[in-house]
Amino acid sequence: MLSYKAYCLDLDGTVYKGSEPIPEAIKFVHYLQRNGIEPFFVTNNSSMTQLQLQEKLQKMDIQVEADHIMSSAIACANYIESTHSGKSVFVIGSNGLKDALDGKNILYTDEVAEVVVMGIDLQINYDKLATACLSIRAGAAFISTNKDHVFPSERGLVPGNGAFTKLVEHSTGVEPLFVGKPEPFMLELIQQKFGFKKEEMIMIGDNYQTDILTGIRMGIHTAHVNSGVNRTEEVQQEDAQPTYYLESLEEWIK
Amino acid sequence: MLSYKAYCLDLDGTVYKGSEPIPEAIKFVHYLQRNGIEPFFVTNNSSMTQLQLQEKLQKMDIQVEADHIMSSAIACANYIESTHSGKSVFVIGSNGLKDALDGKNILYTDEVAEVVVMGIDLQINYDKLATACLSIRAGAAFISTNKDHVFPSERGLVPGNGAFTKLVEHSTGVEPLFVGKPEPFMLELIQQKFGFKKEEMIMIGDNYQTDILTGIRMGIHTAHVNSGVNRTEEVQQEDAQPTYYLESLEEWIK
Repeated sequence: MLSYKAYCLDLDGTVYKGSEPIPEAIKFVHYLQRNGIEPFFVTNNSSMTQLQLQEKLQKMDIQVEADHIMSSAIACANYIESTHSGKSVFVIGSNGLKDALDGKNILYTDEVAEVVVMGIDLQINYDKLATACLSIRAGAAFISTNKDHVFPSERGLVPGNGAFTKLVEHSTGVEPLFVGKPEPFMLELIQQKFGFKKEEMIMIGDNYQTDILTGIRMGIHTAHVNSGVNRTEEVQQEDAQPTYYLESLEEWIK
Repeated sequence: MLSYKAYCLDLDGTVYKGSEPIPEAIKFVHYLQRNGIEPFFVTNNSSMTQLQLQEKLQKMDIQVEADHIMSSAIACANYIESTHSGKSVFVIGSNGLKDALDGKNILYTDEVAEVVVMGIDLQINYDKLATACLSIRAGAAFISTNKDHVFPSERGLVPGNGAFTKLVEHSTGVEPLFVGKPEPFMLELIQQKFGFKKEEMIMIGDNYQTDILTGIRMGIHTAHVNSGVNRTEEVQQEDAQPTYYLESLEEWIK
């Protein structure tokens, strides 16, 4: 299966599950690379830096250039650079988000600011949430990495960035702009940077509400792989259908 | 105006504004007391203990017995005692809530529990919110003091307990039981403890969505006083109307 130029793969649930690689996906990446195609990795994760994601993939025997890794943190930094250049920025988030902002030389403050950006932050506290709300009430742009209402941890399903974003939305009455999946913003960045046509791109993932909808909204082909959050039978109930269904990515190695 | 036996007064916006007493309300309380009527004070505030509220009123020249002060913290403790006796309890909240639970000899834990109770907590952190979500996902009862999405602070409008409760609701998909206004639970506790008939009770406050709706849902008379959150003209737009409109409580001193 070598019909596309840009294979955009989700990470968690598609390439790995937490710290465990999914062997069929690793084989598929190697197959693409043997045929001269460097896939893209597209993740809502904003807590890890591009380098940390690169090193995690390397441990799973996937060598990838940094600019083929697209996270919601990188997408946020791109968005702020292009739309809110020079404005003061207040960040709730982890190293991944701060590293991405640093990469674009975006300065951030601890005080009420003109732009609020939210990603998952395990060091969250009342004061940070108050500063975000006060900024937004004073008219700040409100940007969030993703809508994920939970994420899996060793303890079980714990609140994700989408839940903290909902708190701020509920308190202020202002809806955020989400840059992560299912918004197609990350795929648009890849398209713009590398000059792909839409028919040359495909989005591959396990999660209907994030991965598959992102591809559908982008207007590109999509493949659902039965290795993570949504089972094939669940996805078959949805109105808008993916282009392909795969039990595993090994099916596409010819 | 001495038509009722139980005058249930909201506090913030009705009797005082923050640390400033509202003189007409203080005079009205003295008028009731001179006529042998001890009013009740009904507040969504869960951060202050009954004693702290009593002392605050005392500084404003209002002497009141502790059992005439009903807060959402006290209501929570009553609810847990009557409905979830003996179950393990996880608390997000301030001294007011913990003090009310202590008053009912309800033991609480730092771990996943069978009952989760939420009130405003300026020491909130990720771990507390995760423990609340994990408990609720495992089937815990989910109780919250109130829906207040903001509260006024020196910095401006900052997130209230309702916003944090919304985070947990959004992450878990489970709706909480609110014991505070506009639910009539606090008025029911007063009714039960003192044996009032509904026609003997009146709820008085400045906030339509909390005070007036509480009285309407309880099926008792209500008075809106034009000293706080909602102006008279706003309240006049609502479908369900209060029994009385007052510019100030001085109008009722004869």
